[in-house]
Amino acid sequence: MREYNTEILSVGTELLLGHITNTDTRDISEMLSRIGVNVRYQTVVGDNPERLAQCVAIAKTRADVIITTGGLGPTCDDLTKQVLAESFGRKLVENAAEREGLYEYIRTGKDFTPNNFSQALLPEGCTVFHNRWGTAPGCAFEAEGKIVLMLPGPPNECVPMFREYGIPYLKKLSGEQILSHTVRIFGMGESAVDDLFAEEMNAMRNPSMAPYAKECDCLLKVTAKAKTEEEAEDMMAPVIAHVKEKLGEYVYGMDVECIEEAVLPLMKEKGLTFAAAESCTGGDVARRITEIPGASAVFLGGCVTYTNEVKSRLLGIDLELIEHNGAVSEPVARLMAERVRALTGADIGLGVTGLAGPDGDGVHEVGTVFVSMAVEGETYVRELRLGTFRTRSFIRRMAGNHLYDMMRRYLTGLKVL
Amino acid sequence: MREYNTEILSVGTELLLGHITNTDTRDISEMLSRIGVNVRYQTVVGDNPERLAQCVAIAKTRADVIITTGGLGPTCDDLTKQVLAESFGRKLVENAAEREGLYEYIRTGKDFTPNNFSQALLPEGCTVFHNRWGTAPGCAFEAEGKIVLMLPGPPNECVPMFREYGIPYLKKLSGEQILSHTVRIFGMGESAVDDLFAEEMNAMRNPSMAPYAKECDCLLKVTAKAKTEEEAEDMMAPVIAHVKEKLGEYVYGMDVECIEEAVLPLMKEKGLTFAAAESCTGGDVARRITEIPGASAVFLGGCVTYTNEVKSRLLGIDLELIEHNGAVSEPVARLMAERVRALTGADIGLGVTGLAGPDGDGVHEVGTVFVSMAVEGETYVRELRLGTFRTRSFIRRMAGNHLYDMMRRYLTGLKVL
Repeated sequence: MREYNTEILSVGTELLLGHITNTDTRDISEMLSRIGVNVRYQTVVGDNPERLAQCVAIAKTRADVIITTGGLGPTCDDLTKQVLAESFGRKLVENAAEREGLYEYIRTGKDFTPNNFSQALLPEGCTVFHNRWGTAPGCAFEAEGKIVLMLPGPPNECVPMFREYGIPYLKKLSGEQILSHTVRIFGMGESAVDDLFAEEMNAMRNPSMAPYAKECDCLLKVTAKAKTEEEAEDMMAPVIAHVKEKLGEYVYGMDVECIEEAVLPLMKEKGLTFAAAESCTGGDVARRITEIPGASAVFLGGCVTYTNEVKSRLLGIDLELIEHNGAVSEPVARLMAERVRALTGADIGLGVTGLAGPDGDGVHEVGTVFVSMAVEGETYVRELRLGTFRTRSFIRRMAGNHLYDMMRRYLTGLKVL
Repeated sequence: MREYNTEILSVGTELLLGHITNTDTRDISEMLSRIGVNVRYQTVVGDNPERLAQCVAIAKTRADVIITTGGLGPTCDDLTKQVLAESFGRKLVENAAEREGLYEYIRTGKDFTPNNFSQALLPEGCTVFHNRWGTAPGCAFEAEGKIVLMLPGPPNECVPMFREYGIPYLKKLSGEQILSHTVRIFGMGESAVDDLFAEEMNAMRNPSMAPYAKECDCLLKVTAKAKTEEEAEDMMAPVIAHVKEKLGEYVYGMDVECIEEAVLPLMKEKGLTFAAAESCTGGDVARRITEIPGASAVFLGGCVTYTNEVKSRLLGIDLELIEHNGAVSEPVARLMAERVRALTGADIGLGVTGLAGPDGDGVHEVGTVFVSMAVEGETYVRELRLGTFRTRSFIRRMAGNHLYDMMRRYLTGLKVL
């Protein structure tokens, strides 16, 4: 089977200035590695036609697939299509459907100026990747024995477009299937997971297995390469069963992105609802579940009570009790969960109060957080020490993970504390 | 004055697999842009000596400064020094001080194996960058008219080493400062901004100006290159004044990352507080302001009311009124802002109710959102049509931007609607 060596060529002066991080390249590389396409080079060049043309010339000498990101927009900086088309001897022609699409866009009442229509110019004979996430379309074509894909730069356009159009386009070229499953883990760090499986992992080739650290949890990725998807699945099944057995209750889900994504179907299954009263997380616990479509089936709402007075006004917690125990305390966390549960009529009430930093309160160290869960007849409280050297955003996210972990444990019959 | 064109060459297969993000390159680029060194190319290549040697050969043809990251460690994958030394005809010799340093490190009781001593091998005649953050030293040398710097890959070693050794080393070579300011814009798209300034931008060289699209707003970046920081600031001042005048009330801030970051100091200045009642944004409006340290001075809290019943239970909005008008309606938005203001005792109450999708409600199209702001004696409501083709997360973020924009306009005496 032919190997498809790939170069990703990102175009954008803002990358060279360090103003933005090249997450597009990371995400494209990660998706390519999953379907067995080798990325050999990643190059970044500015919005300069001569230097871009030189980079394309170099890429032609060393890659079979050239994927560009950025430079497809309507401004005068945006020159990727022009340079690539010229470099491969293709004309740019106006695509009628895309021009129509731009008209559609105008009708939504968005700002639109004549130079936007330059986005409908595409290399002759290309496969158009219609952009449902923004305006600039991407495309793919084959020329001079090379495969060229062009994607817009903004990550919220580039990544879904590559997933939806780029990967299927390239998959047709490769005769192999590489599939992966991820086992998501909470409560055990990457190095502990690594230690647990080190020997087996070193001995494994296909399927293979590797641990990855995420910001506030970690995962084990199992990957298999085979002629068919079924064969790859069959190769992975026993490995995944073994991993799940060995990790036991630390596993919160398979092929999910975050713990709340694992909790949502558990709640739906049982027909339960929840609500949250948040202090230091400032709405992030609610934001996370409501980021998922369909959350309204299980999440009712709740309160963000950022000051003592609002804890008292919205949740009816006695101000004296707060002042006596401190806002960051077990009794306040307990009452927050219980009161939000009663107020909203939810089956499960969550509470969280703590110190996300960077400033302390003179009493607790930064990273001290109380998370609580009230259910019929019982309230659970976990006291967390998330580390004084952690960022505000880490502490907030980790506190939320603990809340969702408490729910998961409760819903699956595991010990909550 | 000579220009120092730079190429950053990152070595590491894990980058090509998308397992890690290339933050080293971003951070180095950002530091270089501040001292007026142009980064022209950023290249990533795997742990493969032939391909690395080819990349070095290309870098020699197009850069004056070559900065490598990664591949300096003790394992057999680590070959950057060998390849660079060979490519520039330098021998690797053992550095006695660094070997001593490695002995020191052993005494701290860390894991250490004999191959660790390979880290003390460095190109003959180089300037050694001692690594206080890990074990592998970096270095710099000049050869064939090029300047070569080598840094270890782990970001917590690479970044401080470049800051402490790399920047001073290069500063001696460059006499220039590059500074930038960003003008943040809400309510006008990137292409409209581009249209407005296209002619001027094309004519400008130094200072220069370019528009950038962000997910839900956009910015104009003004950059100047000069001998001193003062001179660069003086060159930018009239351009920024002109831009601000031309864009008028669309400008929400300078050198900030988001609109809430501009609103926070305005609120502090006036000693005002606010609270939010959120439906479709599900806590995101609260999350955004509380992401910023010091938010507790102006943000009291609020409610997430994801269901009609909870809108009634927490905010006391009549269920019949909700059912009669629909939850996504002007009267409900109005009451949400007014009630949360009254409940919390805040100066400003915000409300937001809408359809973030992907599913519709059979009445409104996805992207229909009502945002509201209640102040003493007045309540403002904006009806938004954010577009049926937008993602859930875009609609939620954009709705929040409109709320913060209403606050900004109110606080600075502009027309709110």
